[in-house]
Amino acid sequence: MFRAMMPPSTIAWSASGIRVLDQTRLPVEEVYLDLVTVDEVAEAIRALRVRGAPLIGVAAAMGLAAAALRAGGQGGGGAVGLESVRQDCATLRATRPTAVNLGWALDRMLARAERAVASGEALPPALRAEAQAIWDEDRAMCDRIGEAGLALVPDGATILTHCNAGALATSGKGTALAPVYAAVERGRRVSVIADETRPLLQGSRLTAWELGRAGVPCTVIADSMAASRLSRGGITAVLVGADRIAANGDTANKIGTYGLALAARAHGVPLYVAAPRSTFDPSTPHGSLIPIEQRAPEEMTRLGGTVTAPAGALVWNPAFDVTPVALITGFITDAGLFAPDRLMEWLRP
Amino acid sequence: MFRAMMPPSTIAWSASGIRVLDQTRLPVEEVYLDLVTVDEVAEAIRALRVRGAPLIGVAAAMGLAAAALRAGGQGGGGAVGLESVRQDCATLRATRPTAVNLGWALDRMLARAERAVASGEALPPALRAEAQAIWDEDRAMCDRIGEAGLALVPDGATILTHCNAGALATSGKGTALAPVYAAVERGRRVSVIADETRPLLQGSRLTAWELGRAGVPCTVIADSMAASRLSRGGITAVLVGADRIAANGDTANKIGTYGLALAARAHGVPLYVAAPRSTFDPSTPHGSLIPIEQRAPEEMTRLGGTVTAPAGALVWNPAFDVTPVALITGFITDAGLFAPDRLMEWLRP
Repeated sequence: MFRAMMPPSTIAWSASGIRVLDQTRLPVEEVYLDLVTVDEVAEAIRALRVRGAPLIGVAAAMGLAAAALRAGGQGGGGAVGLESVRQDCATLRATRPTAVNLGWALDRMLARAERAVASGEALPPALRAEAQAIWDEDRAMCDRIGEAGLALVPDGATILTHCNAGALATSGKGTALAPVYAAVERGRRVSVIADETRPLLQGSRLTAWELGRAGVPCTVIADSMAASRLSRGGITAVLVGADRIAANGDTANKIGTYGLALAARAHGVPLYVAAPRSTFDPSTPHGSLIPIEQRAPEEMTRLGGTVTAPAGALVWNPAFDVTPVALITGFITDAGLFAPDRLMEWLRP
Repeated sequence: MFRAMMPPSTIAWSASGIRVLDQTRLPVEEVYLDLVTVDEVAEAIRALRVRGAPLIGVAAAMGLAAAALRAGGQGGGGAVGLESVRQDCATLRATRPTAVNLGWALDRMLARAERAVASGEALPPALRAEAQAIWDEDRAMCDRIGEAGLALVPDGATILTHCNAGALATSGKGTALAPVYAAVERGRRVSVIADETRPLLQGSRLTAWELGRAGVPCTVIADSMAASRLSRGGITAVLVGADRIAANGDTANKIGTYGLALAARAHGVPLYVAAPRSTFDPSTPHGSLIPIEQRAPEEMTRLGGTVTAPAGALVWNPAFDVTPVALITGFITDAGLFAPDRLMEWLRP
């Protein structure tokens, strides 16, 4: 019964490329886009039609493979084919600078392309197989995160979350919401409080929508209400996703996560970051070295047809902030639940 | 030069009632409303056309006086007139439960009406004089708050504020922004960072608009960005207004103030609450006893023509939160700057 109520799948192969749910049209319309060229995939990622760190990686890999399949039909291959894959990787990599899964998926695709060329293997089927593997692993990763976090979501739990790190952010049952879905699958009664997540409202538009589909009660609050809500008690845990986790555990996630973490700490509510291994970036020693994407001021000065700030107002619009590891109770990963001081051990190559 | 750039006045007498700036139309249109009946004034307060704790008190007093003037013309007076004033007070008092200035202004108007009736004085001119006094005192109060907070806004200061506690919230130069305007009047270079203040965006719509009018540089951020911005340094102080201050200094202000106060404290940035004596409520011993207005869910599920949450989403929408006095560095009042531990002494009758 639960599975029938899951949100529709966010991504699939189409006849000539990939098919994705356009998340900018939610919660009003459920519109699917067929993306054929790498430029179309890049635009969809840049415009947040496809968003969520894990899903971006899957979409980039699948988009790259689909492009190679078409080019392969036109006789591409060998050194020429590899050069084209490199260019496509560069185009896709430039779309979002903070999410590390994107670079991880593209590195993996490029390495597979290089191996294929070196061994005289045809590029298109090799890339298609690698993208399919990334997609399959993403769904399995969500399931493992769900199991790893299950004990944090007991019967009667109320979970506070920020942005959307749910099914819509992945090709499976999500990261931060995976333990919620896993608990609901076992018959536990769980409710969620969703920060609306300004400026793009991924919490009220996406998290509330997918939880509604799954029959999980969800209450929307403004980001600024979280501290007050935490002060009233009854919150079991704060669960959030991540876009990049530095080697020391400092975590870049949607703007507002840091303020939420301060409020959770002030009220003794544990905060867990849920993310797959591909979100951890051991090459970045700590959070202050994570590049933070700045987005267009228009995201803050208009919403739909409504002007929300006077013409000419200055705007600061970072997409992410960094939560220091000291405010993080633990990490829910596809390899289990880790206390921050166990991270280094796990990440060591 | 500065005065010429001040925002237009928020309230005035009109031929048959009061004239107010409709703040729900900002920042796009500057529309003034002529309010004639007490019901019209009540609707304008309830719908936040007229908002800001001090301005609500002034508007209620002036609206009440205008109604009495019209009734007086039809022969109202004595016991009948007093009963009508009592009913009007009840109507206006019910519009916003949290702001204490409203009750304070209405109590004062009612006491004046009772004195007038007891001494055989005509009600309408007595009420008009009392409302005029409340209005005049409000402007003078703003000036005194500006002077009291002047030392907190040195040349080169960057002030972070939440909601709108500026000229638009009063009939003068504001409360939290009064020290900013006072500093600018003395030639100091000051810039302001304005939390947009969801759900009704008083920061991006109103604070950015009035500071733009006054030529003060203002950068709009989402409420959830404040913690990240504070972590980057360079913020001189956080200045906010208040809707009600309990006897112990706990302060009810626009939702989000509490989370902002936690973030300011985490970064060692002082937070000051600016408010006139009428916002202090010695009859409420501490913050948990302050009634918190809950507003309609539609404020969170739509913005203009845009649907921001799925149909049927649950919403929690408190208009205010309470910041414990432990997070407040000081109070900027019309009687000077007070450390929290000096409050009781000042408030003692």
